[in-house]
Amino acid sequence: MHKILLTLSLLLTLSLHATENLPSWNEGTSKQSIINYVQTVTKKGTADFIPVKDRIATFDNDGTLWGEQPLYFQVIFAMDRVKALASEHPEWKTTEPFKSVLADDMHGVMKSGVKGLLQIVNVTHSGLDVETFKSEVKEWLKTAKHPTLNRPYTDLIYQPMMELIQYLEANDFKVYIVSGGGIDFMRAFVPKMYGIPEEHIIGSSGKVHYKDGKIMKDDEIYFIDDKETKPLAIYRNIGKRPVAAFGNSDGDFAMMEYTEANDKYKTFQLYVHHTDDKREVAYDRKSHIGKLDKGLDYALKNNWTLVDMKNEWKVIYPFELNQ
Amino acid sequence: MHKILLTLSLLLTLSLHATENLPSWNEGTSKQSIINYVQTVTKKGTADFIPVKDRIATFDNDGTLWGEQPLYFQVIFAMDRVKALASEHPEWKTTEPFKSVLADDMHGVMKSGVKGLLQIVNVTHSGLDVETFKSEVKEWLKTAKHPTLNRPYTDLIYQPMMELIQYLEANDFKVYIVSGGGIDFMRAFVPKMYGIPEEHIIGSSGKVHYKDGKIMKDDEIYFIDDKETKPLAIYRNIGKRPVAAFGNSDGDFAMMEYTEANDKYKTFQLYVHHTDDKREVAYDRKSHIGKLDKGLDYALKNNWTLVDMKNEWKVIYPFELNQ
Repeated sequence: MHKILLTLSLLLTLSLHATENLPSWNEGTSKQSIINYVQTVTKKGTADFIPVKDRIATFDNDGTLWGEQPLYFQVIFAMDRVKALASEHPEWKTTEPFKSVLADDMHGVMKSGVKGLLQIVNVTHSGLDVETFKSEVKEWLKTAKHPTLNRPYTDLIYQPMMELIQYLEANDFKVYIVSGGGIDFMRAFVPKMYGIPEEHIIGSSGKVHYKDGKIMKDDEIYFIDDKETKPLAIYRNIGKRPVAAFGNSDGDFAMMEYTEANDKYKTFQLYVHHTDDKREVAYDRKSHIGKLDKGLDYALKNNWTLVDMKNEWKVIYPFELNQ
Repeated sequence: MHKILLTLSLLLTLSLHATENLPSWNEGTSKQSIINYVQTVTKKGTADFIPVKDRIATFDNDGTLWGEQPLYFQVIFAMDRVKALASEHPEWKTTEPFKSVLADDMHGVMKSGVKGLLQIVNVTHSGLDVETFKSEVKEWLKTAKHPTLNRPYTDLIYQPMMELIQYLEANDFKVYIVSGGGIDFMRAFVPKMYGIPEEHIIGSSGKVHYKDGKIMKDDEIYFIDDKETKPLAIYRNIGKRPVAAFGNSDGDFAMMEYTEANDKYKTFQLYVHHTDDKREVAYDRKSHIGKLDKGLDYALKNNWTLVDMKNEWKVIYPFELNQ
């Protein structure tokens, strides 16, 4: 009798455990691989155990934790800001890429290339202190809506990934964001929306200078956090090699490869694969934003976890939970 | 009777508390100001309460947490490394500043100025991956001895400051180092010696590049973390304004001023003042290393905590505890 009760209680615990973690993930390969990894490396006294201090997990943001189509949301913010600041800059009416932004001519904006986009980011992200800038982002997020989904951008975070972050944190992982997005832009919403604090947000950043107790944003790029510079950012800000890395594009490949090259601990790599053309956007090898090509081949060949959004996620966004 | 017991128990608690915290600090102004601050801002439900997530404390390293005389220990490491690498560089025998280093001619080294020192640091801190570099530092620390005290450099950390770090951490402060020292050099010993993890170590750094899963150190300075750039480093790596800052020189002034300009929370600033010419070295306004002049005036005028090492510290180094 005693034995039966124990077994029942164990089963109950196990089943509770199973329903508690990652509730928006369908049972399947990805969910199982995540849980297997976490259970394996957190089991004290085993060969694969990772001490708490070394449980570093790094996540890309755009396309991994929230949407990035049809354009990185920060670029849309920058374009909206061009419009908001236009009255102070009459010259923009006749100068590219601003002229195209003001005319809502996306084709024209795109024609200006990376150089044009950086110009737009530079002029819209400078000339003020970082705290004021973050307030501007927060204000924008309150009212701006996604062009096709007609929802605030903060609605477009991925519910299953939020659960994954919580699951890792509950198992004493330190979760960092390592994104091509700007640190101030992300710091304006990530702490509140994801529960990840400012000091765990690594990203691209502009030049700044110190003046009278404030950090002032200058009109120049300081660091672009993408591809081979992601490991450099991790080295500078964390100083430890992550044991787990999460991304969705070739831009995350070096970070994941750097993680996999950890010769001390068992590691984990996961790509979010955008396979859902109904609930989100299906894209990979040929996308201009979030291209996943080289990384997809490597993931398939090397048994990295590849999340099939369409089939493995019960919901994409948090608001679906209430529908 | 009940009341008396309560009072006795309260007194006992208070006295236990007093003997537990900061045991190597003499009773006095500095110890009291530290304890007052921490007790004030950690008391829930009061106006000065600081939520745990915003309890960020930043410490300088050289001269604040360990010694820095007669030369920054990292510079001594670099000079020792010039000697160790000399056989691979026959040209150093005839080229300054290396010639002077190899001849143990400190005057000659000093004559090469900042440019010469950077040259020494660059060539001795590059051409290998960061993990191998840290191993080299660890090896050096095992055998190298301070020129006058004849002790390993890791013996020369300040016991009262270690207790201060522990006291802050016990009160849920996140403690960071923000130092002019190199991040790899510090990461080789700080986690073990101070209990501060790699991801809380901010400092100067050289350029690096990513290759085959490794971070390779290049022969060029990337970022010098000193004076007005300390707030910038804090902004980039932490993204929150600290509430408490600790330093010993004018090089820390901007970090402390930036902390004081926190308009949300009560803040704390502390200068370690090197007043002990017997147990350590007495220096301030006129020192070439760790000059404290402008900061000293400001601290005196603005009621910052100024630690009189000679009179306020029972011991300077941990090894004194066992004597």
